[in-house]
Amino acid sequence: MSEQPTPFHLYLCNLKTEFMKAEIITIGDELLIGQVIDTNSAWMATQLNKIGIDVRQITSIPDSRVHILHALTEAGNRARVVLISGGLGPTRDDITKQTLCEFFDTVLAPDQDALADITALFAKRGYPMTELNLRQADMPEACNSIPNPVGTARGMWFEKENTIYVSMPGVPFEMKQMMTDHVLPALRLRNKGTSVVHRTILTTGVGESFLAARIETWENSLPAYIKLAYLPQPGMVRLRLTARGCHEEKLTSEVASLVDKLYTLIPEYIFGEEPDTLEEVTGRLLLRHGQTLATAESCTGGAIASRITTVPGSSSWYKGSVVAYANQVKEQVLGVEKETLEKHGAVSEPVVIQMAQNARQLLHTDWALSVSGIAGPDGGTPEKPVGTVWIAVSGPKATQAAKFQFGDNRERNIVRATVAALNMLRVSLLDE
Amino acid sequence: MSEQPTPFHLYLCNLKTEFMKAEIITIGDELLIGQVIDTNSAWMATQLNKIGIDVRQITSIPDSRVHILHALTEAGNRARVVLISGGLGPTRDDITKQTLCEFFDTVLAPDQDALADITALFAKRGYPMTELNLRQADMPEACNSIPNPVGTARGMWFEKENTIYVSMPGVPFEMKQMMTDHVLPALRLRNKGTSVVHRTILTTGVGESFLAARIETWENSLPAYIKLAYLPQPGMVRLRLTARGCHEEKLTSEVASLVDKLYTLIPEYIFGEEPDTLEEVTGRLLLRHGQTLATAESCTGGAIASRITTVPGSSSWYKGSVVAYANQVKEQVLGVEKETLEKHGAVSEPVVIQMAQNARQLLHTDWALSVSGIAGPDGGTPEKPVGTVWIAVSGPKATQAAKFQFGDNRERNIVRATVAALNMLRVSLLDE
Repeated sequence: MSEQPTPFHLYLCNLKTEFMKAEIITIGDELLIGQVIDTNSAWMATQLNKIGIDVRQITSIPDSRVHILHALTEAGNRARVVLISGGLGPTRDDITKQTLCEFFDTVLAPDQDALADITALFAKRGYPMTELNLRQADMPEACNSIPNPVGTARGMWFEKENTIYVSMPGVPFEMKQMMTDHVLPALRLRNKGTSVVHRTILTTGVGESFLAARIETWENSLPAYIKLAYLPQPGMVRLRLTARGCHEEKLTSEVASLVDKLYTLIPEYIFGEEPDTLEEVTGRLLLRHGQTLATAESCTGGAIASRITTVPGSSSWYKGSVVAYANQVKEQVLGVEKETLEKHGAVSEPVVIQMAQNARQLLHTDWALSVSGIAGPDGGTPEKPVGTVWIAVSGPKATQAAKFQFGDNRERNIVRATVAALNMLRVSLLDE
Repeated sequence: MSEQPTPFHLYLCNLKTEFMKAEIITIGDELLIGQVIDTNSAWMATQLNKIGIDVRQITSIPDSRVHILHALTEAGNRARVVLISGGLGPTRDDITKQTLCEFFDTVLAPDQDALADITALFAKRGYPMTELNLRQADMPEACNSIPNPVGTARGMWFEKENTIYVSMPGVPFEMKQMMTDHVLPALRLRNKGTSVVHRTILTTGVGESFLAARIETWENSLPAYIKLAYLPQPGMVRLRLTARGCHEEKLTSEVASLVDKLYTLIPEYIFGEEPDTLEEVTGRLLLRHGQTLATAESCTGGAIASRITTVPGSSSWYKGSVVAYANQVKEQVLGVEKETLEKHGAVSEPVVIQMAQNARQLLHTDWALSVSGIAGPDGGTPEKPVGTVWIAVSGPKATQAAKFQFGDNRERNIVRATVAALNMLRVSLLDE
């Protein structure tokens, strides 16, 4: 399927160790009318990628026999592994299991293990069992059924003409547990000898085109088997390097020296590497200093606090937030002076400075971050249009404030303000 | 493509007004290695659906000439509209435009409108323009180029053998603006005469199987041209009814009477209908009472505040939150008694009651919600395992608390606690 000549590096491989190709099929009418975003595919692709299996296509189709049969046939012609998610619920909109029987020329029969599992699960939860649940214990005879410790629908592992097909539930946490416990270990055994090495460098404070111009020479020096991708997100651009070949050690060291070089080219924009996040990097800096953080949020409305507290263990450096959405709360809880609010408005340098300084005192922390801005869609004025955001960082030595001008979109403005605030804190901690 | 006999309802249609079929292709290596979740497809599918265009497949493929050509051919064979998103960035991992030229047998040439737009955009932003940006003004001669007021990559509208192909950038807000301003209006003109009617009923506090058993008879009464789907999410199950045919008015009234019936069957679980959200429904109840809300969050860490403040205009009923992640903040900011914390622990009925009552006083609101729990992965004990969450609602007349036992997953526990808290408030407001 590759349209480029095989790079030299790959000729070093044993001929048997070609990259195993996979496809993902997600099933559900809800995906095709856009009511559910397909997050399963991205997760499955990440996991396959980590074990050197190459996802070449993701296909979402409706709960329809014809579409399922067509997609299975097509994917089976192209790939050696086909992962299917969705369409196994107890309710009648799900017809995947019957269609799989047709495709694999087999029939449904009661599976005693499945029945025992379902019965035990309902007993544990104390829910009554319905006839629909009982029907979930019927499995195609031609498959190996895969346990589902957290739900009622088992998975199915089929093999046909040298291709593996695995059907799993669409409920994300059920699918994930099944993949982790059973599917990935089994696939890993079938795919020895190939390697994919990724590193993703995280940057903030610079746009994609400007970044590309800055690192053009470096990018031109990449060998054919190492690819670079620019992955923009609100407030940041991620740079992903992917190396593929048979010698993991060699690939890893090659990528490492490329990344080292990149750090010397754009040190001011790099804040870390995946799987790190900005909140984790910032948290580690605080931990290293033995210091703590509070936040005082207006326009971000708790988004900074919420992002920080997704990090397990953040309680060792994060104390809490005052979400001062109303000016009255800025005054009465945070102690911002009424006069300052009236004279300068809530979105102003003096107000964010008081918010940060007072939050630091009120919550007894070493550092405090504050944000006040106009997220939109309403509230903009000619002097302070939608997207105007003031951010302050107050630390043991000083308090600094900066003004940002983001765009028109409320959701993006909240994300960009959150990223900018955490990055201001990170830079201040580095300067300490 | 339909595997069922055409339902009677459709015979009433003019034969010319078949449902227009569409497919969506998203392009980008980042999608195939799972680093980016494809949210564009869901949004595009929703929009097409609203104008009666039926998405039958969504396909994600890598930035590869062979894959793009193959996907365009396949989709073109099956659908009359093919929307393509991604692969138009300025950087070198994007080869879509060249491949489109090959597929449509045309060449790139400088587009003066595109060049003027890009120059103006960079001038407005005050960024320097790179050669990469200039190259974005080259467009295939065979297409109608589509303006991009918020970015540098124009869209392209092609027609070939009775199928429309539209290529758009992958950056979500650029794609959305292009769809809204240009693509959807043009497609609407081509697709007169067909109708799809959706209604999605939102339930909480009940599992999918139990719900299905409760409404089985009603579900069995649905005519063939009205479909029901169960869409579970953490803490809620959405029930989507989809009716398809040529007589919009008749479909709308049929669906309305089915929904009315559903309300009488499970009134205790229904909290609203899409596009409403739980936070909007709760906010409207507060507005109707002329009352205000504060929150005091421990384990949800600002997630409730953040969810509420995504609602534009929430400042008229929501004052703010104290995110008391540390016990010290529960004591010093929220005034929870040290003795109570020591005797009962932070995750307890007396603590959430004090948190709610004191937040209500501190922020001068009519209502306050408080949450304290063990989100995980650490912090569980035999008496209070991970997933134990106490929630309290304090209102003008009384304060109530309830204990919930969620699961093992930190992220899901935070979402489920958020939903449960907002629903407790909603029910209390209805009881007022």
